[in-house]
Amino acid sequence: MAVGEGVLAAVLIIGDEILSGRTQDTNLRDIAQYFGAHGVDIAEARVVGDIEDEIVAALNHLRERYAYVVTTGGIGPTHDDITADCVAKAFGVGLYEHPEIIAMMTQRWGGEITPARRRMARVPEGGTLVKNPVNGPPGFQIGNVFTLAGVPQVMRGMLEDVGHRLAGAAVVVSRTVRVEGSGEGVIAAPLEAVAKAHPKLSLGSYPFFGPDGYGSSLVIRGRDPVEVDATALELTEALLAAGVAGQAVQDLS
Amino acid sequence: MAVGEGVLAAVLIIGDEILSGRTQDTNLRDIAQYFGAHGVDIAEARVVGDIEDEIVAALNHLRERYAYVVTTGGIGPTHDDITADCVAKAFGVGLYEHPEIIAMMTQRWGGEITPARRRMARVPEGGTLVKNPVNGPPGFQIGNVFTLAGVPQVMRGMLEDVGHRLAGAAVVVSRTVRVEGSGEGVIAAPLEAVAKAHPKLSLGSYPFFGPDGYGSSLVIRGRDPVEVDATALELTEALLAAGVAGQAVQDLS
Repeated sequence: MAVGEGVLAAVLIIGDEILSGRTQDTNLRDIAQYFGAHGVDIAEARVVGDIEDEIVAALNHLRERYAYVVTTGGIGPTHDDITADCVAKAFGVGLYEHPEIIAMMTQRWGGEITPARRRMARVPEGGTLVKNPVNGPPGFQIGNVFTLAGVPQVMRGMLEDVGHRLAGAAVVVSRTVRVEGSGEGVIAAPLEAVAKAHPKLSLGSYPFFGPDGYGSSLVIRGRDPVEVDATALELTEALLAAGVAGQAVQDLS
Repeated sequence: MAVGEGVLAAVLIIGDEILSGRTQDTNLRDIAQYFGAHGVDIAEARVVGDIEDEIVAALNHLRERYAYVVTTGGIGPTHDDITADCVAKAFGVGLYEHPEIIAMMTQRWGGEITPARRRMARVPEGGTLVKNPVNGPPGFQIGNVFTLAGVPQVMRGMLEDVGHRLAGAAVVVSRTVRVEGSGEGVIAAPLEAVAKAHPKLSLGSYPFFGPDGYGSSLVIRGRDPVEVDATALELTEALLAAGVAGQAVQDLS
């Protein structure tokens, strides 16, 4: 986000269970990390309920605006799983039973494929399959939209068949300087000075509240690893000059 | 969501760190549970980065559409904390230094209030404070928008000063029937039959993948606890008739 030019994507999380607070979503974080490692940055995410008009409207807005969109959830066999229908409607195409999925189901369950299971074989016309290495039917891609499962383990498995389809920019790398026991009030001035000196980088402060009161993770993000590393050092020195001890910590990316 | 008539709200999560996958959001779940207990259902959530135009556009869309909006994040003192500016811009008002916050800061830090800290005293004209029982400056309310901290402990604390301001509908209650070792393919038919018999309830299937393969939490939601309880029993019997053992489990709500 806001780190020079980039290839941007959006995530559309579908499901009443996320909005009711029953289920803690973790798919956004997983998708963001995976896409980030492929040089595609998540610029926006939305959570909508199991309502056709809401899903179609959000999907059409996002797919026109971003290079890629990932949807999660709503591709099972039950009556509240309407994502395939909504994606087809958004693209103005029909759904058909994909022969590969029917063959997989026949192999697994013999001739006995319930109408509910047949629902999971439906793919929008023009769509291609996204492999499911865990269990159950695959997801699919149509245009710039990837439609994946909502169950986190299955969603993560499906991502492995998405990465090779992405045309990303240079990967954003980050370095974190962690400050404990000092609030953002004393950090803000040196942080802003260093940020202004590096307009191509993104410098953010992500506070936390722990046993020693407020602390903050100061995160430097950019596409040039050398500049990012040098800026982490510069920031540590600027903090020291302001009387704050910051510690460089290992980054996830 | 989709449970008869209700009072609906939206959540706007602000921060690059959520979109980069660095931070796992938990505020949506906490707000959804808290608002749900006050009879207000979250109908939509959005995550946007630290970009003024994006925040203002999302906020203006959501506040016109829903009874309430909660924002989280971006109210600290650093240069990337722009939420107060964006809320003021969305409402077309200015920001002013709230005397209560300045008094609190003076008490805590003496005469020495840095320009960065003064940023945290800014409230949109016409706004009222939302108490922060944890540490640091308060959030604020303007119109139907509550602007809260991003740090989860602080956000949760601030919610306690939000609940009494909400005019909610009857609370949605839920019952869950958990099915282990049977996929949704065999659950779908009895679930749909029971759902069709109770149009005022919402019945959803939330699959999981565990050591025994797929299972599912079948969740019945509605505003009439007696009907919800009776329907949980009816669903358990319909599942048994279809050869599936479902177990009623304790619900959070």
